[in-house]
Amino acid sequence: MAVEGGDRDYVQSLERGFAVLLAFDEELSNPTLAELASATGLSRPAVRRLLITLQRLGYVANEGTRWRLTPRVLSIGQHYTATRAMIEIAQPHLLHLAEQTGESASLAELDGHDAVYVARVPVRRIMSINVAVGTRVPAYATSMGRVLLAWAGPERITRFLEESDLRARTPSTVTDPAELRLVLAGVRERGWAIVDGELEEGLISAAAPVRDRTGRVVAALASSTSAGRQAPEKLANETVPILLDAARDLAADLGHVEPRAAVSRDGFY
Amino acid sequence: MAVEGGDRDYVQSLERGFAVLLAFDEELSNPTLAELASATGLSRPAVRRLLITLQRLGYVANEGTRWRLTPRVLSIGQHYTATRAMIEIAQPHLLHLAEQTGESASLAELDGHDAVYVARVPVRRIMSINVAVGTRVPAYATSMGRVLLAWAGPERITRFLEESDLRARTPSTVTDPAELRLVLAGVRERGWAIVDGELEEGLISAAAPVRDRTGRVVAALASSTSAGRQAPEKLANETVPILLDAARDLAADLGHVEPRAAVSRDGFY
Repeated sequence: MAVEGGDRDYVQSLERGFAVLLAFDEELSNPTLAELASATGLSRPAVRRLLITLQRLGYVANEGTRWRLTPRVLSIGQHYTATRAMIEIAQPHLLHLAEQTGESASLAELDGHDAVYVARVPVRRIMSINVAVGTRVPAYATSMGRVLLAWAGPERITRFLEESDLRARTPSTVTDPAELRLVLAGVRERGWAIVDGELEEGLISAAAPVRDRTGRVVAALASSTSAGRQAPEKLANETVPILLDAARDLAADLGHVEPRAAVSRDGFY
Repeated sequence: MAVEGGDRDYVQSLERGFAVLLAFDEELSNPTLAELASATGLSRPAVRRLLITLQRLGYVANEGTRWRLTPRVLSIGQHYTATRAMIEIAQPHLLHLAEQTGESASLAELDGHDAVYVARVPVRRIMSINVAVGTRVPAYATSMGRVLLAWAGPERITRFLEESDLRARTPSTVTDPAELRLVLAGVRERGWAIVDGELEEGLISAAAPVRDRTGRVVAALASSTSAGRQAPEKLANETVPILLDAARDLAADLGHVEPRAAVSRDGFY
């Protein structure tokens, strides 16, 4: 179905409703109506109507003049999880990975220019942001994102390198498109990625691709830690083999049958 | 602020947009427009406009005539998690609890008549439903829900018993309001709850209250397993002490200072 609706097909109040919900954040956890208006750029009467609606639907509640999200907003994400069997199938594999490595284990999918955490077993806080499920990180500067990009196909990679905002998140972030293309080719060849301090200083992670029964890479499995706890060499030698096993086991549970010639003498395909 | 907006303040298209998002589910993970119209009771042109809008906002995508949610819908729940510091603070406690017991550990909040999972470390699938964060279970038939209700105050309990749909989920579900009131009083007195097969046959769980720095019970911490793996007595004798320790440790991290007289000779307060 071609969906090429004109502007008359666009429901602006829906966009505005989401804007109000997403204005609630770590820094604005109990905003007033005025603060929400300021954060969204909407008029106070518009925000008021949206809040009244969201309140009747049970997504927000107020105490005096201050508003807060209710746990009902979690339903929306829960419906995503319910539609993706992979996320539930991955849970024991994530837990096992976290137990074996003693480090946080994550599963991510590619969405636009970002890797999105869709499941996670956190062992400790290693990033400056709270990495809950739903958190988005830029694909180019993370091991999960690079794995997802590496197998996304040449057209997607080219478009990504043209369109994505390749900012230096730390002094070591690779931001040159040509260099990134080489990095992604290397990831594909090796079969995994390690990123050391390119998103955030002191954060180091390894990721491996997860294939579904069609053989397509549908997610990245990652183990993340702080650089103070593990050197890249140790991560490559000790964590990566565990990670590759976990990714293979998960893929097998998803129905992926590894081709007989898949593991060459060099250990990658 | 009194929010008593009349119907002219209600943004119906926002309600309809959520209805479309929530129509995607385990059984309807890749619906067609017609299936979504049927599931929501909305007209096809209305669903089409909403899908076009949700697609532009990045929450849904289509392949041919079939639609799916994208991981972007997880953002909405992530904003809830970001506004609730407790959820992040609870993560290591949940992991520790799961490690000590070898069973799934969960954190839930009360929302309306339901306990909502706001964080979880799954060890294995024990319920027939996929218990992702955001999953709602009826408060009266679950250990988490009973803990949350037990400390919600007498008015809330009375209203709950009057308004909630107390259905027998299994032959052993307590559905009599007077009996439930006694059960809740018992939970308060003991300081924890065990529910054995009242939500689902074979599912057994223990829960304890989590207090914030004001002393208010803000969440329930639970350990769940299958009845085949643990008898209620073993759960009470072995798991509950671990659970109570975990709930106290989490409360301490939330700034709760236990009153000196809190632990009486009987072991509860």
